[in-house]
Amino acid sequence: MDFSIRAANLEDCKDIARMIMELAEYEKVSEHVKVTQKDLEQDGFSKNPFFHGIVAEVPEAQRTKDGHVKIGYALYFLSYSSWKGRCVYMEDLYVMPEFRGKGIGKALMSKVAQLGMAAGCTQLNFTVLDWNKASLDFYAAQGCSDVTAALGYHVMRCEGAELERLAQP
Amino acid sequence: MDFSIRAANLEDCKDIARMIMELAEYEKVSEHVKVTQKDLEQDGFSKNPFFHGIVAEVPEAQRTKDGHVKIGYALYFLSYSSWKGRCVYMEDLYVMPEFRGKGIGKALMSKVAQLGMAAGCTQLNFTVLDWNKASLDFYAAQGCSDVTAALGYHVMRCEGAELERLAQP
Repeated sequence: MDFSIRAANLEDCKDIARMIMELAEYEKVSEHVKVTQKDLEQDGFSKNPFFHGIVAEVPEAQRTKDGHVKIGYALYFLSYSSWKGRCVYMEDLYVMPEFRGKGIGKALMSKVAQLGMAAGCTQLNFTVLDWNKASLDFYAAQGCSDVTAALGYHVMRCEGAELERLAQP
Repeated sequence: MDFSIRAANLEDCKDIARMIMELAEYEKVSEHVKVTQKDLEQDGFSKNPFFHGIVAEVPEAQRTKDGHVKIGYALYFLSYSSWKGRCVYMEDLYVMPEFRGKGIGKALMSKVAQLGMAAGCTQLNFTVLDWNKASLDFYAAQGCSDVTAALGYHVMRCEGAELERLAQP
């Protein structure tokens, strides 16, 4: 299958917002999605962006029945490990179901790795849901290791009223 | 106990590098620390920093037997959730053992939360080792939840030869 991977721009935010919602529906958490197209435009494409994005596109002839040609995306940002230094964090990796198994997810992830390495990063990090066997198998095939299973790292979070209370001086 | 929290600057990198090593020794992984004082100076205090830092200082009269007055630190960076938008990630939180139990860790964490909220973040994320009961208790007392235990998120990683292979187009 013909496809191309390129850096996302402002005009891609509508499709990225659509695919973020598709991914959340797959993960059964769509009610938690607060991010809108406008948020993505503002947070990803202003002077000091909070994230970067790449999109996968297919030719018009292969568009979906709903007319989409932007059929996959990854979001990432640069981060830091106090042990290893510069890292790249992949926030999302998504390919629309009908386009899976064609190397598009791998190409997107490879691009994130390339971009991270070009910025001096020596580590790519992300999270995955432990019930998502298809994703776990895919990532294992790309040479990724499960740091939670191997070393016991747990993701912790503070938000909402708890975050406001924590921020009280 | 008297202490102050302030933004880290270039001159703090020597002490931060020392405390990163102390924290890694506590976590029994000091052989994994590759980051040097010079890396911190370059990655945290150049034009587009990969992280930000804050330090906790005590007055000279309360310095350690080795003469240290910088006795705690936190590193953080801005990140992004495709569901919730702007987030702040706390990479490290450390207080030297003899200064614990005096509210310094909480003050450092509170400052990270304040700085994150000031940048529009609605979520504070970090990781903790599941055997580190003292830390887990401390974070629970600050209103943090264990996302790995509650929702099944696992931290995944790709590095070294695997990352180089992944980045091959």
